[in-house]
Amino acid sequence: MSSPVLDFWFDFASTYSYPAALRIAPLAEARDVTIRWRPFLLGPIFKAQGWATSPFNLYPAKGRNMWRDLERTCASLHLPFERPETFPQNSLLAARVALVGLAETWGENFCRAVYSAEFGEGRNIESPATIAGLLRNLAVDPDVVLAQTQSDDIKSQLRAQTEDAQRLEIFGAPSFLTSDGELFWGNDRLEAALAWATR
Amino acid sequence: MSSPVLDFWFDFASTYSYPAALRIAPLAEARDVTIRWRPFLLGPIFKAQGWATSPFNLYPAKGRNMWRDLERTCASLHLPFERPETFPQNSLLAARVALVGLAETWGENFCRAVYSAEFGEGRNIESPATIAGLLRNLAVDPDVVLAQTQSDDIKSQLRAQTEDAQRLEIFGAPSFLTSDGELFWGNDRLEAALAWATR
Repeated sequence: MSSPVLDFWFDFASTYSYPAALRIAPLAEARDVTIRWRPFLLGPIFKAQGWATSPFNLYPAKGRNMWRDLERTCASLHLPFERPETFPQNSLLAARVALVGLAETWGENFCRAVYSAEFGEGRNIESPATIAGLLRNLAVDPDVVLAQTQSDDIKSQLRAQTEDAQRLEIFGAPSFLTSDGELFWGNDRLEAALAWATR
Repeated sequence: MSSPVLDFWFDFASTYSYPAALRIAPLAEARDVTIRWRPFLLGPIFKAQGWATSPFNLYPAKGRNMWRDLERTCASLHLPFERPETFPQNSLLAARVALVGLAETWGENFCRAVYSAEFGEGRNIESPATIAGLLRNLAVDPDVVLAQTQSDDIKSQLRAQTEDAQRLEIFGAPSFLTSDGELFWGNDRLEAALAWATR
C-alpha cells in the first residue's frame, strides 16, 4: 500500500502557517504520510468574502491576541519569533518561487526558509533581495529562479492553485486536506489531520 | 499560597464553548486552579465590530468547516454532538440563569447542562421550558429562578459582565484570562491557559 497523502495549503502571508510549516515534515514522517506542499494566495479568497486585508487587521482585538498567541506558541515550540513590521506581506513572489522549487528538490527547504525569515526574524519577504538571499543559502541560483517566476507557466500555476483552494472551500491558512476530503484548518489541527490521513 | 485563578469567559451561543465547558473542571482540578465561570454575551461585541450574526453564518465556508470540526472534536473527546436547528441561539435567558446559579451551588452544573442540551442533543435553549427542565433536573425550582432572572440585579450583572469582557478585549468564546492578564482564545487553548496560570 502506498503511504497516505495530505495536502498542506499555505500562504506565506499567514502567521500560523509558520509553525505549521516548521513542524509538518517530522510529524508526517513519523506517521509515514506524504505531504503535498500547496502554496496559494489568500488575498483573492479574503476579497471574495469582503475583506480588503487580513481579519487580524480588520479586527484589532483579535489581531493583538493573535500576535501574542503566536509568540506564546513559538516559545512553546522553541521556534524563534519576531513580528515583521508589515503585515500581511505580499506573498506573490515567494509563492511563485516555491512553485518553482517544489517541482525541483529545494522547494520545502525554501518554504521553511521564507517562514523563518518572515516570522522568526521579522524580515521583509516581499523583497526580491531577501528571496534571492534565501535561494543563495540553498545553493540555488536566484537569477535563474527569479526569471522563471515571470513565466506564464508559473504565473498560471499559482492562479490555478488559488482557484483550486477556493473551489475546495479553503478559507484560511494553514489548511490540511485529506484524500477523502476532510478539511482541517489551523496549525492546531495538524496532528488531527495527520491522524485522519492514517486512520 | 492560595490556588491560582483562571477566568473562563463563555457565551451559551458559542459552539466551541461546549467542549471547553465540559472539559474545564477536571483539568483545572488536576492543576489545582480555581475557575471563575463568567458568562457574557458575544452579541454586543460582534455588533461593535460590524457583525449582525455569528461569523460562522457570515462566512459560510468557515461555518461549514466549524460544524464538521466541532463534530470531529466532540467525537475525539467522546462527547455527544448534535447540531441545533437554530444557530446562534439567543443566550440571554440561559446567561441570566447561570448568574443566579453561580452565586448559589448549582451554577456550573447548570452551565454544563445547557451546553449538553444545546450541542449534545441539538435542543432549543432559548426556550424557557427547556431551561426550566434543566433546572428541575438539578433539583432547582424553575419558578423561583426564572423570576430572579427578571430582577434588575441579575440584568445589570450580565450587562456589566459583558462590558467587562469588551473592556478586557475579549472578542470570542471561549476565552481564558489569567490573573496576570494573559488572554487565551478557544477550546484549543484551555490547556495552555491552565499551564500559564500555574507557572
